[in-house]
Amino acid sequence: MKSKVGLIDLIARYIIRQKGKKIRPLLVLLSAKLSGGINERSYRGAVLVELLHTATLIHDDVVDNADKRRNFWSINKVFKNKVSVLMGDYLLARGLMLAVENEDFDFLKVITKAVKRMSEGELLQIQKTRKLDINEETYFQVISDKTASLIETCCLIGALSATENKEYQDALKAYGHNLGMSFQIRDDILDYEGQSFLLGKPIGGDIKEKKITLPLIYSLNKVDKKESDLIRSKIKNNNNKATVKEIIEFVRRNNGIEYAYQVSLMFAEKAKNSLSIFNDSEVKSALEKLVDFVTERKN
Amino acid sequence: MKSKVGLIDLIARYIIRQKGKKIRPLLVLLSAKLSGGINERSYRGAVLVELLHTATLIHDDVVDNADKRRNFWSINKVFKNKVSVLMGDYLLARGLMLAVENEDFDFLKVITKAVKRMSEGELLQIQKTRKLDINEETYFQVISDKTASLIETCCLIGALSATENKEYQDALKAYGHNLGMSFQIRDDILDYEGQSFLLGKPIGGDIKEKKITLPLIYSLNKVDKKESDLIRSKIKNNNNKATVKEIIEFVRRNNGIEYAYQVSLMFAEKAKNSLSIFNDSEVKSALEKLVDFVTERKN
Repeated sequence: MKSKVGLIDLIARYIIRQKGKKIRPLLVLLSAKLSGGINERSYRGAVLVELLHTATLIHDDVVDNADKRRNFWSINKVFKNKVSVLMGDYLLARGLMLAVENEDFDFLKVITKAVKRMSEGELLQIQKTRKLDINEETYFQVISDKTASLIETCCLIGALSATENKEYQDALKAYGHNLGMSFQIRDDILDYEGQSFLLGKPIGGDIKEKKITLPLIYSLNKVDKKESDLIRSKIKNNNNKATVKEIIEFVRRNNGIEYAYQVSLMFAEKAKNSLSIFNDSEVKSALEKLVDFVTERKN
Repeated sequence: MKSKVGLIDLIARYIIRQKGKKIRPLLVLLSAKLSGGINERSYRGAVLVELLHTATLIHDDVVDNADKRRNFWSINKVFKNKVSVLMGDYLLARGLMLAVENEDFDFLKVITKAVKRMSEGELLQIQKTRKLDINEETYFQVISDKTASLIETCCLIGALSATENKEYQDALKAYGHNLGMSFQIRDDILDYEGQSFLLGKPIGGDIKEKKITLPLIYSLNKVDKKESDLIRSKIKNNNNKATVKEIIEFVRRNNGIEYAYQVSLMFAEKAKNSLSIFNDSEVKSALEKLVDFVTERKN
């Protein structure tokens, strides 16, 4: 990752210090292992998805005006939006170049589609956010595109590197999709009930950003129009700590968190079932445990 | 370009209304025509570079906090930074998908390298801007990466679509590089002597952004250390209209614009010479005239 530009190396070192969960490269390798075996291409796929994911996190933090990421200051906080946008582009290009140079054209096909879906999902969320009119169907569309698309792609890339068996590829892709859905719903729940010191960022961030996620969608649908209009106008007009606390209380009172948790469990179950065509093995069991980890995680 | 996300279509229509010079797709087609003939792949290449260029313009305007682009409000001004970053990512992905789906893998090789160089060039410029210590050598490195790389790539893509003759490809690549250098130097000159109603943005923008370009580099080198330190400290500490005017005066007095113009002519000459291996033709003459247009343009 060495670059002739000093600033790029500086930011790269800063990013590496942050140490994420590395779930995406892990998924590439486990998927490869389950469907045929890890090889050179699997490792390249793992690097590709982590570079791409890092690029999108940096752009996301610009998009969300986030100050913190993994308990460190975000890149946009330290180096400003300008540098963040460019560093994201740079990492994306580096990832794609890795695939291009090694002629991993099948990876490119799936990864560019994922990049498109990720930006589409975020833009759809913003569009709906402005009107505060998101329903469950649109919410699932948003999280499928913005989050599950990349996780699905990780599993597919692992499979592509290891096997030509289309059924195996499809099964792992379905596993990734369902895991990704569960992952994002969990993420959205954590914004309501997480502990900020574990998350590395404050809770209630989505409410401040006027992002309406599953726990709130469910709660808004449950109450009468008068109450839901009131809550919507509060979200629209205020974003101080008291309002955020009030919205969290409203969601808790209406079992929005419990409902979202049940939906995440449903996707978790689907993810596990997607693996049914594979024989039992240590790797399969690891992928199953990963589903539980993702659905139960505290950060 | 239709998308299922309404916001994307809205922004796409806004972009299309702006009507740029379309120099980059033009270069793809002229290069193809000169080196063998335009075909389906040439058209795809032209679309690819225009999508990519549009994506980078949108990110650039975020990076530069620009309010105006082509006499219209910039995307970041109308739709905010969030949406701009994502729309840039979306257009980049759409462009890459076009190449991937049609298996134009040679295009992908050169285009991903260009994206990497463009972000590297911008980041190098920012790094140097912070210290105000850029010299001519670094300036040439910056503009080669941030601007010439894509123009060079347009010509190369045109050639790749039309011929397998390596000499033709190299000649058009060299033409594009030199044209791009001349193009950016002209751009930097226009920031000092252009007319804002033609440019579609105010002059002196680079000075406000503390970007030190060729006219200023030359002028700073020409005067004694005392004067250059004074000018540097003014750039550093002030960015009001009076300071900008003073810096422009300083550069004019020291023939910085005239010097930069001579350098741009040198690159223009090199660009024309790069075409010497081709027989004279209407297309070759068009490419030569494009060099003059770029070097003399008022916007």
